[in-house]
Parts: sequence; C-alpha cells; structure tokens
Amino acid sequence: MLLEKSIYDFLEELGSKSPAPGGGSVAALSGANGAHLISMVCNLTLGKKKYVEYESEVSGILEKAKKLGNQLAELVQRDTDVFLSVRDAFTLPNDSMDERIEKQEAIEEALKDATLVPFSVMELSLEGLNLCDEAIGKTNTNAISDLGSAAANFEASLKSAYLNVLINLKELSDKNFVSEYGMRSAELLKISEEAYDRIYKQVLIGIQ
Amino acid sequence: MLLEKSIYDFLEELGSKSPAPGGGSVAALSGANGAHLISMVCNLTLGKKKYVEYESEVSGILEKAKKLGNQLAELVQRDTDVFLSVRDAFTLPNDSMDERIEKQEAIEEALKDATLVPFSVMELSLEGLNLCDEAIGKTNTNAISDLGSAAANFEASLKSAYLNVLINLKELSDKNFVSEYGMRSAELLKISEEAYDRIYKQVLIGIQ
Repeated sequence: MLLEKSIYDFLEELGSKSPAPGGGSVAALSGANGAHLISMVCNLTLGKKKYVEYESEVSGILEKAKKLGNQLAELVQRDTDVFLSVRDAFTLPNDSMDERIEKQEAIEEALKDATLVPFSVMELSLEGLNLCDEAIGKTNTNAISDLGSAAANFEASLKSAYLNVLINLKELSDKNFVSEYGMRSAELLKISEEAYDRIYKQVLIGIQ
Repeated sequence: MLLEKSIYDFLEELGSKSPAPGGGSVAALSGANGAHLISMVCNLTLGKKKYVEYESEVSGILEKAKKLGNQLAELVQRDTDVFLSVRDAFTLPNDSMDERIEKQEAIEEALKDATLVPFSVMELSLEGLNLCDEAIGKTNTNAISDLGSAAANFEASLKSAYLNVLINLKELSDKNFVSEYGMRSAELLKISEEAYDRIYKQVLIGIQ
C-alpha cells in the first residue's frame, strides 16, 4: 500500500519506469497535504485566547479538514488501483466475438472508474479551497503562509486531476458520460481558479 | 528523518499541533514529486522506437530530473530543521546586554537560513518547470498528463515557498538582504507563472 511506504520509497517508485503511481496519485497526495496543513493551522489556533471567539468555528473547520485529508489520502492508492484495472482490461483475450465484446465492456468500465477517481479528487480539493477561505481571518496569523501553501496544494491537485480526467475521457465511447464529466470537471477547475486567486491574494496581504 | 516516515505518518505529523513540518517542507515535497514525475515520463520514453531520435536528449533530462528530485527531497527535511533553529534562537536567554545582542544575532542568522531554504526550493522548482518545457514533444505522449502534473506541482512548490520566503523576510533587520531576496523571489515567481501557463496549455493541447 502506497501510504505505508516511506516518502523516500514512494518518490523512488514514482520516478521509476512503472506508470503507476503517476500524476493521478500525486494529485490526491497534493490534496491530502493541503488538508493536513489546514488541520495544523486549526490545531495552532485552538486554545489560544486571541482566537477564542472563533473556537467553535475553527473546531468545525478542523473536523472537516481531517475528514477531507483522510478521503484524499485514500485516493492516492485508489488512483493507482484504477489505473492498473485499465491496464488489465487491455490485456483481456479478444479471439472470439464474445471475448471482444467483453473486453470492450471491461475497458469502458475501467476507464469510467479511472475518470471518477480524479473527478472525486477535484471535488474534494475544491472543498479544501473553500475551507481555506473559511479559515482566513479566524486562525493563527503566524501560520497564514501555511493556509496559502494549503491552497496552492489544492490548486495543483485540481489542475493535475483535471488532466487525468481528460486523458481517460478521451478513450471512452459513452458520449453522455464524456460530455457530463468533461463539463463538470471544467466547471470545477474554473471555480477553483477564482477561489485560489482570491485566497492567495488574501494570504499575501495577511503576511505584509 | 521526515523522508523515512511513511506517507501516512508524515501526513499525521503535518496535521498535528507541531508547526514543523509545515508549508515549507510541503513546498519542497511538491517539487520533489514534480521532479520524480519527469523521471517517470523519461523512463517511459527511453528505449521506445517512436522516440529514438530524442534518446540522448531524454537521457539528459532524466539525469537532471533525478538530481533535482534528490535536491528537493533533501530540502523537505532542511526546511523543518531551519524552522526549528529559528524557534530555538527565540528561546535563548536575554538577561544581560551581551545575551540580548547574541540572541538578536542568532535570530537574524536563523531567519536568513529559513529564507534561503524556500528560496532554493523556488530556484529548483523553476528548473523543474524548464525541464517540463524541454520534455514536451520529445517524451511518451501517453504520459503527457504526468508532465502537466509535474508542472502543477512545481508551480505549487514555488507559490508555497514564496510565502515562506516572505514570512521570514518580514522578521529580518538586514535591509539589503530583505530587499535582495524580496526582489529575486518575486522575479522567480513571475517567470514561473508564465512558464507554467505555457506548459499547462501545451499539455491540454497534447491531450486532445
């Protein structure tokens, strides 16, 4: 399991000839890093007198960030799994007509899974950006750069995951699925870019 | 050592009340992920007939990406170390005039180190973006989304590291140092944004 590997070993495996883990798993990892940075910022805020008026709100953000961090971390492994399923489907036999139909269906199914995982990463990382938005102004100002880092990681996660959505959609035959997830993922990316720009500017102002 | 921790344990420690590792170490990790993604793309290209004309160029990119990946991975630990040195400097005694002077000098020195580490992360991640640029069109097109993910990770690395440069510069007294690294880091960020936009657009075109 990827999450049990040391960072050193994960990086080695990432750089190797094996195509998985690749950009999709890294997209989920960027999101997980972002969510855990929000948790840290909340933990550096709770219990401090200066922020007592935001105590319950920050507790709420912490709970959401923890859940998000776990969900995104799970998708690091999941993205590699669905990639391997696609590869396996391509190795199915296709000697008879029945086998050819079965193989096509298996490929189509695996590609849909391989699209839905990075799509989920995008949805979760957009939630992460919204949490950054909520946290600014209510959390420890000494850690405001960490909120900015969290936002940068969510944005990288969305941008990477989007490419993984597109590359899988390209191979799919189901036109409705392709059209639906093409539109929805482009929309998530657009919303995220606006949110990220706003958050990063607020962080820059907060630092000065 | 952070690189020896499992990803799971790293994320746990990142989310904890302890301020290190924080956004600075994550910035270096994003860059390391980016560099290792380039290595993977090169490894998926070398030896393939279709790309034989780029063989020596891609070998060169692979060597640079490997070196970059190692340098950035080392800075994951280094950023946490320099953060802790700043914290230690703030706990030095300041009862006598001599002690106060010594403490001020120690803080100043530690803050400079804590600025130079994320500044190095920025320089290295910009090198990474340039490697993505070189690799596009010469590497396995099946892995083009991974080059885009690499670029997204370098950009997140630069954006995060920049915030860490700024937050340390803010506390420094040496006006020349503050002015020099303020300007140089802003310049790196600007160059990177242009490079990243160009690369990401090329990747989108390459996927379609």
